[in-house]
Amino acid sequence: MRIALLGGTGDVGEGLALRWGYHSSHDVVVGSRDPDDAHAAADEYEATLDAHGRDAKFTGFENAMAADRADVVVLAVPPYHVADTVEAVADRLDAGDIIVTPAAGLTRDDEGFHYHPPSAGSVTALVADAAPDGVPVVGAFHSLAAGRLADLDADLDVDTLLLADDESAKDTVAGLTEDIDGLRALDAGGLANAAEVESLTPLLINVAQRNDDLWDLGVRFQ
Amino acid sequence: MRIALLGGTGDVGEGLALRWGYHSSHDVVVGSRDPDDAHAAADEYEATLDAHGRDAKFTGFENAMAADRADVVVLAVPPYHVADTVEAVADRLDAGDIIVTPAAGLTRDDEGFHYHPPSAGSVTALVADAAPDGVPVVGAFHSLAAGRLADLDADLDVDTLLLADDESAKDTVAGLTEDIDGLRALDAGGLANAAEVESLTPLLINVAQRNDDLWDLGVRFQ
Repeated sequence: MRIALLGGTGDVGEGLALRWGYHSSHDVVVGSRDPDDAHAAADEYEATLDAHGRDAKFTGFENAMAADRADVVVLAVPPYHVADTVEAVADRLDAGDIIVTPAAGLTRDDEGFHYHPPSAGSVTALVADAAPDGVPVVGAFHSLAAGRLADLDADLDVDTLLLADDESAKDTVAGLTEDIDGLRALDAGGLANAAEVESLTPLLINVAQRNDDLWDLGVRFQ
Repeated sequence: MRIALLGGTGDVGEGLALRWGYHSSHDVVVGSRDPDDAHAAADEYEATLDAHGRDAKFTGFENAMAADRADVVVLAVPPYHVADTVEAVADRLDAGDIIVTPAAGLTRDDEGFHYHPPSAGSVTALVADAAPDGVPVVGAFHSLAAGRLADLDADLDVDTLLLADDESAKDTVAGLTEDIDGLRALDAGGLANAAEVESLTPLLINVAQRNDDLWDLGVRFQ
């Protein structure tokens, strides 16, 4: 399957690119607003995998060109850029393509990070509002620490929760998730359940900051 | 230490009573609005522990009498009763006593359960607003499944997140938590961080309902 990581030069994009390159044979396209940055990141990820004994190929393109080439488009961009990123690539998406959103809206104060959803109710809902008709949206990967994804020597052994109203799209993303060793995909229901899933992101940061010996935290439901 | 479980005849109260009775030597007082219900539950919990080879003693009292006897008071009542329960017992609490609140506000629709905090921002904040001066509030036990607590043959092997502005009170509740085999206490920060912790409650119910082979779910941060 061909996966485009829009904002694929950022830390979440890097982590997912490296993991799919390492654990699967999916064709990963790195997208960025600047095609030179996308090319450079693709080369860098190839070098990282080469150093781990994997001969994986990545390509790099401007976001819309990356989306044009993909079956699954991951919005690895900050939450305040999800809507304009979807708009920028919308006419490159075909019916049946899938948009995946891992972002959560956060604020920070002296006590830590807090969940701060957009007026749509969740970032996932915001993406669904912006998505073209016929292109289902799946929320996923909210509770994965980018640094741990990008460290190919680190075991994952954590869960990710999937949200979608389209069960077929959810199944596809569940498959992509479990292609990565150590990730278990769990069904968290429809897009209406997104706020509770996105709330995990600030919670995990707070817990990691306040407890010795915990960092790059994920979560396991058991 | 003497622990009062207000609403201790309910499922969360039963689970915590049985676990402290089984794993610790704390003096557990079962509280209820009806003292006869409290007595009956205390007798029932003693019988359950006896069947598991433990000679633990529980006492049962009306909530205010139970609170009067305790160093730590757990509000094992539904979220819409936390404020009036605190008010009903307030003049029995001494400075230095600790109130523990495990409740989260939920709503339900066709997609599942959702976090629905009171206007105070969280149930934990509502309890803190109602608590007498000098009586610190600790949020704890939100992510524990009552059924699993009450099944003494079930391994727990899960975490609970603690919220408090009073570090000494938080340390005390961390100790009580870890007196129960298989529970790890993690610091989630001050009371301002409660909404993200309380949001785990509907999330865990949704995940358990939608995934085969998962029930009475807890969470492990790793």
